[in-house]
Amino acid sequence: MCGSENQASTNGTTTTKLNSPSLSSNIVLNLDHGDPTVYEAYWKRLEEKCTVVIKGSELMSYISDVEKPCWFMEQDLENAIKKLHRLTGNAVVDDRYVVVGTGSTQLYQSLLYAITTTSFAGDGDGNGDGDNNPLHHDQLPVPVVCAAPYYSQYAEEADYLRSGLYKWGGDAYAFDKDGPYIEVVTSPNNPDGTTREAVVISDQGKIIYDMAYYWPQYTPITRPANHDIMYFTFSKSTGHAGSRIGYVTNEAIARKMTKFIELSSIGVSKDSQIRAAKIMKVICDDYQDFKSHNNNNNNNTHFFEFSRKLMENRWKRLREVVGRSNVFSLPKYSQEYCLFNGECTESYPAFAWLKVKEEGVEDCEKLLKEYKILGRGGKRFGSDSSYTRVSILSREDVFQQFLDRLESIKAN
Amino acid sequence: MCGSENQASTNGTTTTKLNSPSLSSNIVLNLDHGDPTVYEAYWKRLEEKCTVVIKGSELMSYISDVEKPCWFMEQDLENAIKKLHRLTGNAVVDDRYVVVGTGSTQLYQSLLYAITTTSFAGDGDGNGDGDNNPLHHDQLPVPVVCAAPYYSQYAEEADYLRSGLYKWGGDAYAFDKDGPYIEVVTSPNNPDGTTREAVVISDQGKIIYDMAYYWPQYTPITRPANHDIMYFTFSKSTGHAGSRIGYVTNEAIARKMTKFIELSSIGVSKDSQIRAAKIMKVICDDYQDFKSHNNNNNNNTHFFEFSRKLMENRWKRLREVVGRSNVFSLPKYSQEYCLFNGECTESYPAFAWLKVKEEGVEDCEKLLKEYKILGRGGKRFGSDSSYTRVSILSREDVFQQFLDRLESIKAN
Repeated sequence: MCGSENQASTNGTTTTKLNSPSLSSNIVLNLDHGDPTVYEAYWKRLEEKCTVVIKGSELMSYISDVEKPCWFMEQDLENAIKKLHRLTGNAVVDDRYVVVGTGSTQLYQSLLYAITTTSFAGDGDGNGDGDNNPLHHDQLPVPVVCAAPYYSQYAEEADYLRSGLYKWGGDAYAFDKDGPYIEVVTSPNNPDGTTREAVVISDQGKIIYDMAYYWPQYTPITRPANHDIMYFTFSKSTGHAGSRIGYVTNEAIARKMTKFIELSSIGVSKDSQIRAAKIMKVICDDYQDFKSHNNNNNNNTHFFEFSRKLMENRWKRLREVVGRSNVFSLPKYSQEYCLFNGECTESYPAFAWLKVKEEGVEDCEKLLKEYKILGRGGKRFGSDSSYTRVSILSREDVFQQFLDRLESIKAN
Repeated sequence: MCGSENQASTNGTTTTKLNSPSLSSNIVLNLDHGDPTVYEAYWKRLEEKCTVVIKGSELMSYISDVEKPCWFMEQDLENAIKKLHRLTGNAVVDDRYVVVGTGSTQLYQSLLYAITTTSFAGDGDGNGDGDNNPLHHDQLPVPVVCAAPYYSQYAEEADYLRSGLYKWGGDAYAFDKDGPYIEVVTSPNNPDGTTREAVVISDQGKIIYDMAYYWPQYTPITRPANHDIMYFTFSKSTGHAGSRIGYVTNEAIARKMTKFIELSSIGVSKDSQIRAAKIMKVICDDYQDFKSHNNNNNNNTHFFEFSRKLMENRWKRLREVVGRSNVFSLPKYSQEYCLFNGECTESYPAFAWLKVKEEGVEDCEKLLKEYKILGRGGKRFGSDSSYTRVSILSREDVFQQFLDRLESIKAN
């Protein structure tokens, strides 16, 4: 850890507002989703370099490579994913299988399926019922837990089909059952940006690491993640959410995950796979070019430097406003040495986990809604209604309007 | 109906083999999937016209239009879908909602979810348990049935998560339970190419129409389909399976289907939506240009004429080989007047539903496998092992090699 927690607070510092087109104060600011349109400005600068061109007869087949466990994954994508992780040093990818999914949402569900039909107990329940399930019936559905505050969708995605294989089990801190379970560890955490480890103490569980935000623009990269089961998403690394590309690295259950994705959607859009590969490659080549030409240009042109500066700027401006507020507060983050940046950096999470501190006001989401700011209330994350998660990844005009409205909310 | 069933048989007619590069007789022919690479040859001709170009900063958001029930659907795609159906006359699309999915596989599951959580009994079970489910607990899971032979994946896709909402119920002909149910009607049918109607007689069911093959290259278009719930897929209409684009038309459960797709994968690849829209538009514009210029060029250049001639040619060659065979037989299809083609046409299904007729041979799939032809055995479709489904949509060299090997299989 570098410096004290106090340094993390930027209350009172001066930052320059970016110029932004004016936005009507009547418009509803939808900051409920973490829609990463903040990055559009960067990609506009590399518009042509990143352009993908797909001809009429290309990418028509369901199949990419029948010899691979993930038979619908394009080789270019796997190569680009590994290249990007080697660049940022945020994950060990050598000799690891990659399974591509339709965003991390599909991957999370593919993991619940793969784990509950493969991983526990090793070699089947031996009850001869031919269901290929290594768990006894009385051990199903397997509870899925995550420490609160947890990503709001984990619960709904585990429960909407009333699966007999898995079931949402709530806050991992409160979990005290015997038997198999799955713990999801989101690090950095959504909604509150903290770095996390597993909390359930038991040897009967499997752990899924959701690493969507473990990229240098959001958090210091303190080590290459080397978890057995971990997943990332293109939506948060580069901001291309519309393409719906995510990926898991794990060998043992690669075939079962692939089976899930086959049954769920017979694979993953090839068009988007190719686009994701291209964009990741452009990021890597950009750094490579810089190195090989010993270029002294402003390194803000590199994606992760640009995006970190951008997030830093937003958090400075947000902390300034919240620092003057007698209504809201924000979490503080300690500084850590970032291996990628080669310096001590703070966390600049994709979401603000706003807490209302005014006495007599209990519902933060409702209060924000009065000012036409749509966030997601704390209860959805297993927390309480004094919290609301608000996206920091909007376009600049929306972000500035959000700050202006936040500034206008005063205690009675 | 036009002509007699005998006319449908092409035994003994002479067709010219297309030139094809030679393919090693040792190579395994994977005809298990209906991988539609047959159409690549057509799209190569329109290569440039159909090219999509996506710039680095485009299509980044999760959201397309928050005002629409299907908030992640690109307007261009909806427009193109409706235009294509108006051209072919195969479905009523005016004033209908469209929901896009990651292929028809995701749509089928979205329908099972939407129907079992919305449609039955109208306004909730009134038991006050707040589960928003209009069915009583003892009515769940709802059986899902389809007349055999049925598409092999319906069963596995209904059961892999052991949902408490729905469950595979088997052959619709054998279904005799009281209470709510869902019947899937696949027309033309996969695997056997027949035209179908619902078979369960009851007023307690909901019917899903899988219309993946109701396009002029596969079957005569006898009327615009106007079913309450019906779905189509880009994979089979134009052959772009790698893009994973399908769509449902229905108003009543559009929001519930959208909710499913949101929980399953937070939407559908925008890159593929845009590509599908472009290709559908090129098909329509091509016909439009032809009309407006009163062009007398060979109308084989239009997609549906080209693809129908191609399927007709393949079926002629296949029937020739099977006609000389003492081992195999094929279903016969009657001719019908096709509103799109303006003439009597036969069905040219995407799959051959091969039956082994040789005494003493019971396993058709196994027999084909000895000749390195991978098909999908009849049992997977709720039929028996004397049948195998073999794809007719492969590239030309593979198809010709398939015919050559089929020809070489003789009765002992």
